[in-house]
Amino acid sequence: MPLLMNRTDIEVVLWSEDRLVTRAWLLENIKGAAGVLVLLTETVNAELLEAAGPNLRVVSTLSVGYDHIDLLLMAQRNIRVGYTPDILTEAVADLSVMLALMAGRNDGPTYSLAKNGEWAKYMHNWSPFTFCGPQLSTTASSPNRTVGFLGFGRISQATLARLVPFGITHCIYTSSPTSKPDTARDAALKAKHKLAAVERVDLDRLARESDVLFVLSPGGKETYHLVDATFLRKMKEMSVLVNTGRGTVVDSDALATALHEKWIWGAGLDVVEGEPHIGTDHPLVKEPRCVIVPHIGSATFETRMDMVTRAIDNLMGGLSGGEMPSELRVAA
Amino acid sequence: MPLLMNRTDIEVVLWSEDRLVTRAWLLENIKGAAGVLVLLTETVNAELLEAAGPNLRVVSTLSVGYDHIDLLLMAQRNIRVGYTPDILTEAVADLSVMLALMAGRNDGPTYSLAKNGEWAKYMHNWSPFTFCGPQLSTTASSPNRTVGFLGFGRISQATLARLVPFGITHCIYTSSPTSKPDTARDAALKAKHKLAAVERVDLDRLARESDVLFVLSPGGKETYHLVDATFLRKMKEMSVLVNTGRGTVVDSDALATALHEKWIWGAGLDVVEGEPHIGTDHPLVKEPRCVIVPHIGSATFETRMDMVTRAIDNLMGGLSGGEMPSELRVAA
Repeated sequence: MPLLMNRTDIEVVLWSEDRLVTRAWLLENIKGAAGVLVLLTETVNAELLEAAGPNLRVVSTLSVGYDHIDLLLMAQRNIRVGYTPDILTEAVADLSVMLALMAGRNDGPTYSLAKNGEWAKYMHNWSPFTFCGPQLSTTASSPNRTVGFLGFGRISQATLARLVPFGITHCIYTSSPTSKPDTARDAALKAKHKLAAVERVDLDRLARESDVLFVLSPGGKETYHLVDATFLRKMKEMSVLVNTGRGTVVDSDALATALHEKWIWGAGLDVVEGEPHIGTDHPLVKEPRCVIVPHIGSATFETRMDMVTRAIDNLMGGLSGGEMPSELRVAA
Repeated sequence: MPLLMNRTDIEVVLWSEDRLVTRAWLLENIKGAAGVLVLLTETVNAELLEAAGPNLRVVSTLSVGYDHIDLLLMAQRNIRVGYTPDILTEAVADLSVMLALMAGRNDGPTYSLAKNGEWAKYMHNWSPFTFCGPQLSTTASSPNRTVGFLGFGRISQATLARLVPFGITHCIYTSSPTSKPDTARDAALKAKHKLAAVERVDLDRLARESDVLFVLSPGGKETYHLVDATFLRKMKEMSVLVNTGRGTVVDSDALATALHEKWIWGAGLDVVEGEPHIGTDHPLVKEPRCVIVPHIGSATFETRMDMVTRAIDNLMGGLSGGEMPSELRVAA
């Protein structure tokens, strides 16, 4: 904020409440603006441009995603668009590891038990396998672990690096069918991490061989429900599914069935199709082996501050007619 | 179990219910036994030896701890004792990383929100820092992290190794005052993990400099309440405390105050003083920034199976008069 507020050459109109801006306020206050900083929740369309008027030259979104912005329209009107890619890689990789551990270590009541005052109650029925789940790290008697990635971009590779000291041995992944194989990169990753394999595979092998499967692909039509009942039925009984990518990649009903009928051990989700409208009657909420956190992948002070800084740099760069550190370019 | 049941040369008397054995059953059925396999919950004392009679030659406990066994009495009666050390190192290191991530990423309602159907409700008040916590991994604009260990044995070192790809830069630790410095090992760890420092420090520096502090020391008088109000007041505002060691090392009331008054950011606990008798009125249960799991450090199928196997190997080794893989030896 000081980045913006200390400027004397621009007038800043700020939604100052600590909640999402209302559409009415935005449409009223954007009048005559040269630039606007928005969140993923603000639709940037003809209506908004109409309200802003012809002065608008820059739209800067505090997000990696840009589904909320009509990019073609922006290009037609010569409005530059900034976004905040890459910055959240480390934060989302951290969360991916956390959810893999939580999903494995979750025998249902584990995380709510102490908060519900039930710790002592459970101990009456303690046995050596109470609260047990599959172990992420290898052991002397269980020396192999295969991690799978549906989508193998920056976040997947940062997650893979974090799992190396847990003793994982094999990495398999799928990529968009239109992308070219990168065997040189895979060989370099295999050598760097001293793994038995880093291999691009098809969905069938990804499902069958992964001990922990990370969904880290983009959303959209091409990845819609790639993880469905057919996929889940092929997975190992003790495997764990983590989705820190996009909710639409996983069929929620199929995953709920897979957990309920124990096709797989557990799931850890940061994203769910239809979020945030996930009520207590949602089939995944009812599954005790499903851990759900509310889309907090990039929610660290460090990362969000870097995202805000980038969004403001984009905005100021665009206003001055200079370089925007992260500009989205679409041909009109 | 097949290890035991397939033997024709021994008679196995088994408590077959999936809950803790009753004392009465144990006292009744141990009569004449040559060996007994017990859990941490069975007190092995004069009463039990009396019930068993003079045949008893081996006690094998399925645990690392042996506070429940009167070792001096065992030595006096020439009863050999087996236990299961070291096996749980990797499982506890996994959980330590999980709790460090969970404590940092916990802005209070994070883990219960979806389960309570409140995801959409919170989004009405969303701002760029909603659900944010401190990031475990380093970022370009936040390039240093110091992890501290209260106690620096095998589990601490396995935890340190797991944190290296998160970008941590400094490792500091305290050890028992009676232990000798091991500067050669520290230099080797520093070189292996490419850290800026691996350094043994005093409690004062441990408290002041740790971004994440892991309590991984033994219990007992020497470590009782080492983490008290004085210690917690010195910690960083954005720091996180993880206890996967022993509950008695941390003063629960002081920690609850530290969380309530925001001396530190959060806590992740696998052990709590007085467990499992932790009710909803416990001061730590009431703190939203405190994550508590019910002593599941070693609770993975792989590790518990290895512990069972070791306990049976100890039992059979002792019965045959041969070697026990992990024998506790105490001079009578």
